[in-house]
Parts: sequence; C-alpha cells; structure tokens
Amino acid sequence: MKHEEHNSRRDFIKKASIGGLATLSIPGLVSSALAVEKAKRVQLKKNDIILFQGDSITDAGRKKDDMKANSASALGSGYAFMAAADLLQQYPDKTLSIFNKGISGNKVYQLADRWEADALALKPTVLSILIGVNDFWHMKRGNYAGTLEKYRNDYRALLDRSRQQIPDLKLIIGEPFAVAGIKAVDETWFPAFNDYRKAAREVAEQYGAAFIPYQSVFDKAQQLAPGEYWTYDGVHPTIAGNRLMAQAWLETVKG
Amino acid sequence: MKHEEHNSRRDFIKKASIGGLATLSIPGLVSSALAVEKAKRVQLKKNDIILFQGDSITDAGRKKDDMKANSASALGSGYAFMAAADLLQQYPDKTLSIFNKGISGNKVYQLADRWEADALALKPTVLSILIGVNDFWHMKRGNYAGTLEKYRNDYRALLDRSRQQIPDLKLIIGEPFAVAGIKAVDETWFPAFNDYRKAAREVAEQYGAAFIPYQSVFDKAQQLAPGEYWTYDGVHPTIAGNRLMAQAWLETVKG
Repeated sequence: MKHEEHNSRRDFIKKASIGGLATLSIPGLVSSALAVEKAKRVQLKKNDIILFQGDSITDAGRKKDDMKANSASALGSGYAFMAAADLLQQYPDKTLSIFNKGISGNKVYQLADRWEADALALKPTVLSILIGVNDFWHMKRGNYAGTLEKYRNDYRALLDRSRQQIPDLKLIIGEPFAVAGIKAVDETWFPAFNDYRKAAREVAEQYGAAFIPYQSVFDKAQQLAPGEYWTYDGVHPTIAGNRLMAQAWLETVKG
Repeated sequence: MKHEEHNSRRDFIKKASIGGLATLSIPGLVSSALAVEKAKRVQLKKNDIILFQGDSITDAGRKKDDMKANSASALGSGYAFMAAADLLQQYPDKTLSIFNKGISGNKVYQLADRWEADALALKPTVLSILIGVNDFWHMKRGNYAGTLEKYRNDYRALLDRSRQQIPDLKLIIGEPFAVAGIKAVDETWFPAFNDYRKAAREVAEQYGAAFIPYQSVFDKAQQLAPGEYWTYDGVHPTIAGNRLMAQAWLETVKG
C-alpha cells in the first residue's frame, strides 16, 4: 500500500507539472521539495528507537519530566509528535519507541552539553536532528559568539561521538529554515543564514544521513498560502507548517 | 491527488481482500471500516468554522483558557488536533477556523448545559460530536442515573437546538466505542453498551449527519496489533489509536 501510494504521488506530480504550479497540491508539494534531493531514505526496523533532537521547533512545548516513549505530552505538539503519530499508526508490528528531547533555544553546542543523558543513554537506532537556526539567530542578535565554523565543527563532533557509541545509528538531518519577510526574519538574515543551511546539508552528506530540505518545503508552500499561514514568526511553524514538516520527515523513512 | 489516492486505496482494498486479512494495511483498514457505511461525506467550504465537541477523548488535555482557533494547545493532543493539522495543511485556501471544546467526563446532558457558550456562540458551520461512553460508563458505575433513553433524547434535543440556531449546520457524529478486554472494559459492558452505539448511529441517520464508525475502526485495528496498542484502558486511545480516529474523521470530509 505504501508503495502504491508513493507511486500514485509520483504520478500526480508528473500530471501536476503539466498543468503548472497552480495545480500543485500539498502532498505533491512535499514530494516535489524532496525530489530534488538524492532522496536517501532510512529503513525502519522492528524495535527501532527513534529520537528527535533539536531546538524549540522540535521541543514544541513537550513536558520535560515525562520520560516515557510514545507519550503525547512527552512528544510536544510539533512535527515530531505528528510524525510519531503516523509512525505508530502505520507500523504497529514494528513496536517502535519514539522520544523527543528537543529544548527551546538550543544551539548545536548545547546539544553536545546534554548529549549523554538526552541522546546516547536512550540508545537510539534512528536519530533525527534539526538544529542551526539559533546558532545563526542568537549570534546575529549579539548574545552568542559562535560562528558558522563552530556550528559545522560542533555538528561533526556530535555525530562522531554518536557513531562511536552507536555504530549502526541511522541519521536524519533537517535543514535549518527561515521564512523571509515574516516578523523575526528580515532581509538582513540573507544571504548569511543560507550558509548554515548549506553546512547542515554538507554534514548530512558527509555522514550518510537522510537530509530533509525544510527550506524548500516552506518555500514551495508559499505558492499555496502566504508565509504567515505556515509560520508564526518566520522561525516557528504553525500547526499547518508543522504538519508539512512531519510529512517531509515521513517521506524520508520507509517501513 | 486526494481523489487518486482514494482510488488507490480502493484498489488496494480489492487486492488485499484477495490475499485475506493478513495483508490489510492501516489505510486500507480505515477505508474498509468506513466502506460499510453509506459514507455520507461533509463538503468543506471556504471559511468553515469546525467545532469538535465531546468528552475526554476529544478534550485530550487541551488548554481550556486558550480561546484561539487553530491553536495547538487549544486543540489538545488527540484525534481532533491530528485531524485539524491535516485539514489546515491540506486546505490552506479554505482559511478554516478549528476549535475543540471537549471536556473530560462529559455526558450528553453536560454538553447541553454548556452548549450556548461552548458551541452556538462560536457559530460553527461544521459540528463534530463524539459523546456517549460516559453516559453508559458512569451509569454502570452507579454514579449517574441516566438511561439509554435519556442519552438518545438529550442528543436529539441538542441537535434540534443547534439546527434551530444554525440551519445550515453540517453534522458529523462519532460512534461511541469500547475495546473489550482492556482494563476498564470487561465483559459486563456487553451487550448493553452496544445500544449506545446503535442510538448514536440512529441519531446520525435522523439528522443527516456523517457517521464515523469508530467501533469498527478499533475492531479492525486489532487484526494488526492487540487492543492495548490502540487504547490505554479500553476507552482512551493511545497516540496510534488517536491517529486512526483522525484518519477516519478525515475520510468523512471532502475539500
């Protein structure tokens, strides 16, 4: 079924492209954003332990003292929860354990600070990371002295450390994104912010990670509704934006 | 795309039925549970105001003081939130306003008590109600004197009142459900509980509402994983169970 549905989506994109952008639907949109990638996908296995890590976008109001797997309050109300709901529903036979340990405001070095307790100790088999917008934003606001170089190097060190402890770790790396023209995100973000996107993509390639081009997803979504529909402030997604992200995330795994 | 996907699902069900139940997938499962219904669907329109009403299953931990439409915390973490996320993502052009006003423990007469403020004042154009398990359960536990007759009559009165104020109101009625053998739900629930399911279905028919056969959805889901995977206590769904419900809900509307 999944395979058929996937083919049906591809067929649709082909048909849609004949009609031009006006006919681009949402599922087509997510798929077309991903189609430009080499579309490396992560194979899910029985008893996989899936860990979502990142900043406020991943955190999404999760209850920090709930340590249980597959718990709604522990997963927050963002893309991680939405992706988890689909995974748990679609793959009941896989008995997945899904955790979210994103923390609002985090930059990549702050992931490193809490990596033992909030990542390695959970023994994830699939690790999904979305980090970088604060590495740029906080630096830009003048309350963080980090550089692009530090972001890249810290990211690599984090993945080296993870692979050393868990050699078979399957990696998913999300592209940091910003929706231009919405509140926090003004023209002074560009082109400097794009270097962080590029760095994340390069790191993903170096480590053989599946890469989720969230920036393309949000760029394309604006053909259907203005940026404010998908994000509150240019950085934090609305429910609709989170659902778009979850769809893109789900397209990078296969059961 | 939606139409194609739907066709693809139907094809799948046909193919799956040749192979028998073992090959039944989750999307196939939801569709096949709905296929036995006359499959009345609600047509969504631009600027629709969608209201989810019910008990704890609808409530799902929503923040009661958040009055905003399309707000994650106001929608809780259950099927209503999940369905809302899909709707907002799939129909950006419809500028939907989605509310959840479910309250834990409610029976149908308690909906009536707060109906002016928590339903009519919002001027919904689409009203989705899931109520009934407490009308049975609390009566059975001896802390509520209501009867099946009262459930049915109160339900009708609620819908009469709603249609009187909002003549074009589009109705969606969910079937109360219980997963037998899981914690709270022992054999003494049956067959008495089934009369509440039947009453909800009859009310749906009388008022031309779309009906969601949640009991069939949960019954069929147990072909794929045991009841505990889909519900915590026989009444309250897990994340996976909520996602199943959201899928079934989404199948009853069209864009």
